[in-house]
This record gives sequence, structure tokens and C-alpha cells, in this order.
Amino acid sequence: MWNPRRFKHCPSCGAPVEYLVPADDNRERATCTVCASIHYENPINVVGTLPVYGEQVLLCRRAIEPRHGFWTLPAGFLELGETAAEGALRETDEEAGAQIELQPLYCLMNVVKVGQIHLYYRARLLSDQFNPGPETLEARLFSEHEIPWDELAFRTVRETLKHFFEDRRLGRPFELHCGDLS
Amino acid sequence: MWNPRRFKHCPSCGAPVEYLVPADDNRERATCTVCASIHYENPINVVGTLPVYGEQVLLCRRAIEPRHGFWTLPAGFLELGETAAEGALRETDEEAGAQIELQPLYCLMNVVKVGQIHLYYRARLLSDQFNPGPETLEARLFSEHEIPWDELAFRTVRETLKHFFEDRRLGRPFELHCGDLS
Ligand SMILES: [Zn+2]
Ligand SMILES: [Zn+2]
Repeated sequence: MWNPRRFKHCPSCGAPVEYLVPADDNRERATCTVCASIHYENPINVVGTLPVYGEQVLLCRRAIEPRHGFWTLPAGFLELGETAAEGALRETDEEAGAQIELQPLYCLMNVVKVGQIHLYYRARLLSDQFNPGPETLEARLFSEHEIPWDELAFRTVRETLKHFFEDRRLGRPFELHCGDLS
Repeated sequence: MWNPRRFKHCPSCGAPVEYLVPADDNRERATCTVCASIHYENPINVVGTLPVYGEQVLLCRRAIEPRHGFWTLPAGFLELGETAAEGALRETDEEAGAQIELQPLYCLMNVVKVGQIHLYYRARLLSDQFNPGPETLEARLFSEHEIPWDELAFRTVRETLKHFFEDRRLGRPFELHCGDLS
């Protein structure tokens, strides 16, 4: 759960902040009691991929909290200085050491309760050899019937996989799915 | 231009921060010299709409900086507690006082230099009566040949309008356009 009031002190000068509605605004913002600067808090982006190799998809078993030991698609926080696609590629390299060709954006999901937007790109795996990084216990390919549905780390991973297998089963083009998780 | 080092003090305790690479990380992060908490900085989302009324589109002339007096699509920063679509609706109401029916996501553009992702939804205007808020000098409808191309506020507005008129001219479905602005 995001903390909508995570600022206690001003990141510019260190003085205490108060949550006040600025004159030209309609929401409470962290406002410095000394230098008067205003500090905004906004949703952040998680970017990742759905890497596909033939009939199989790649999942990574998490070596870190939250959800240690659970399976996820390679994904992580978008960083300053990169595009969403670059971030998705980087996370796939860092978490799985997988060689991919990135394909179009496939799922965009708002996870309002945690202040996040999750963006997953489809990807074509160029090899079935992986080299997982320190955040991953294991990276391996799964056929649809092998997916550990009860051991998936995040609901957006489940949604993305469900959309993919459904689109594939119905022979539909892999168009963008937008959705909200409450 | 985003400032990748905007934290000088710790928002938790107010002590000075240093930019250090945490042990399990590969990027410098604002790290508190006293409480050791780490404060991340990430790209943020701008959400807006492309409101269409018959052959015309709605633009708003900005009453605020940056780009005071220039024309924009209704858009603004996504807030905690709302989905991207809800934010786009809210901004359209706040800036233009326009009644719309939201349609699918149309453009997703990375603006890496300023640490932003811009998301525009198409929208169908339900009325040609507007009630612009304090951030807007004027809200009005434009036919394609009237668009003030040299007085548009932001490059993502220009890109979104160009995609729309091109898709319409070619009779193409209005599918998602993804792009990067350097
Ligand atoms: Zn201050
Ligand atoms: Zn601190």
C-alpha cells in the first residue's frame, strides 16, 4: 500500500513539512514550513516483459521480498533516463539474463492501491538459455498447463498470462489490454 | 529537464542525504546519512485526452507556465488514488470543463529527458460547450486546417494530433501509437 504522506521533512532543506492544499491546487501536498517548496507524490511505473519461446513462456522465481519464492514475469521499476521499453529490456536482462527481441506493449494495468502502473511488453526469446541475476532463484520455461497459478507473485502477472493464453487459444491478434486492479 | 538529484535532505528524518549505490543495486540513490533510508526517484506520468467533436478537436490555451498562452490538449500529472483513465477524465474536466466519453488509449510517449511518460486517450465530446478552469485561458474546437501548429505547448500534443489526423485521413483504425521523444 502506498503511503500518500511519506514526506515528513523537506527534501530540499530538511525542515518539517505540512500537508496543505496550495492556493492553485485542490489536493494536500507536502509543503515545507521553512522554504515553502512543494513536493509532489505520484504513481510510478513497473515495466516488464512476457518472454515467449515456442509454446512456452519464461517465469522467474523471486529471490527477494516481497513474494520471495513466488514466480513472476521479469519486471521492475522504470528508472529515470530510460524509456518504458528500455526498462522492460533491462529488467529482463537483470532478472533472467534472457536474450529477447522486444515486441509491442501488451498489457497496461493500473494498480491504484499501491500507486503503480504496470506495463508488460510481449517479447520473443532468442534462446532458451538463461542467466538469472541475484534477484532470481531460478528462471525457466513453462507450457500453459505447467503454469504455477497459485504461486504467482503478483496479480498483474496472472492477468498478463491469462490474456496471453486466451488470445493465443482464440487465435486473436495480441492487441493491448488495459485494465485496473483494485 | 528532470533533476536526477533533487533530494538534498532525507524526507523521513531531515538529515542530509548522499548519493550512493546500495549494496544490492547498480544506481546511485539518495541515501540518508543518519537513518540510512533510501529514496528513489522515478519517471512520472502525464495523462490527457484528445477530445473529438465531429470533424473538430478540442484544444486549451494555457493560462499557466510553462508555455503560457500556447495551445495544448487537456492533460496533467497522474495523481495517487486514480487510474490513468480517471486522471485523463479529471484533467479534461478541470482544464476544459468538457463533457466527454472516454475512448481507448491512443498514444504512449516516453519523454526521457524530463522523466515523463505521456498517455493520451481518445475521447468523444458530448457537447461543444466548455467551461475552462483557472489553468486555461480559452477552450475551443479546431478543424485540422485551423490547428495552430506553431503555437502548440508540447511536442507530445503535436505528435498526438499528427497521428490522429493521419489515421483519420487514411481511414485507419485508431490503434495505440507508442513513441519516444528525445
Ligand atoms: Zn524546505
Ligand atoms: Zn533519514
